[in-house]
Amino acid sequence: MPDHEPIDLAGKLASFDEHWTPKRIARVNDTDVKLAKLSGEFVWHRHEAEDELFIVLEGRLLMQFRDREVWLGPGQAILVPRGVEHRPVAPEETHVMLIEPAGTLNTGNLRNERTVDEVESI
Amino acid sequence: MPDHEPIDLAGKLASFDEHWTPKRIARVNDTDVKLAKLSGEFVWHRHEAEDELFIVLEGRLLMQFRDREVWLGPGQAILVPRGVEHRPVAPEETHVMLIEPAGTLNTGNLRNERTVDEVESI
Repeated sequence: MPDHEPIDLAGKLASFDEHWTPKRIARVNDTDVKLAKLSGEFVWHRHEAEDELFIVLEGRLLMQFRDREVWLGPGQAILVPRGVEHRPVAPEETHVMLIEPAGTLNTGNLRNERTVDEVESI
Repeated sequence: MPDHEPIDLAGKLASFDEHWTPKRIARVNDTDVKLAKLSGEFVWHRHEAEDELFIVLEGRLLMQFRDREVWLGPGQAILVPRGVEHRPVAPEETHVMLIEPAGTLNTGNLRNERTVDEVESI
């Protein structure tokens, strides 16, 4: 049963190169656990109904909100509550774990060339 | 707004000593993200309706199933699907992140002296 196999985060991260393209490593009931590689600035967006937890595994993440910004390093996390506009910025290649409801679009309320409609499982 | 503050995993882990007593660090919609310190053998149990993802942060975790067992080290995770009997064993003090639906009881289908009814937020 594949669900009994260990999931190696470094191995999963080594299996893809794309930036801003979260990959699913587990589905926990209705919640997805994803890994993503970030680099540069993303777009301002919000998720109307979904909270989103970012956990930095490697690198540095600047989470911008309209009224403040928060720097995160490895072992630090931030909860972005539903409805709150945010923009992730990675000054260097940064690896994150994302925890969010299944079906959460990476670009939230926007649909553009960075939108990932089908999240790949790795 | 406290939700905008970074969550430091090492700091959160340093804030408690109890074993087998998961603490909530974030609620993501209906899912809890928790930290726990494990040491020794837990009890065999299952969660009838809840999947559970264990991610090892420090130490070593042996996840026993009735038909196999899996060793995990830092940076490795395992999904325990709902309904599957399991027993976590930590040969040394081991720190884990748990991702599971809110309301998941640590002892699953059992209720005993190790059951934590009220999960503390830290």
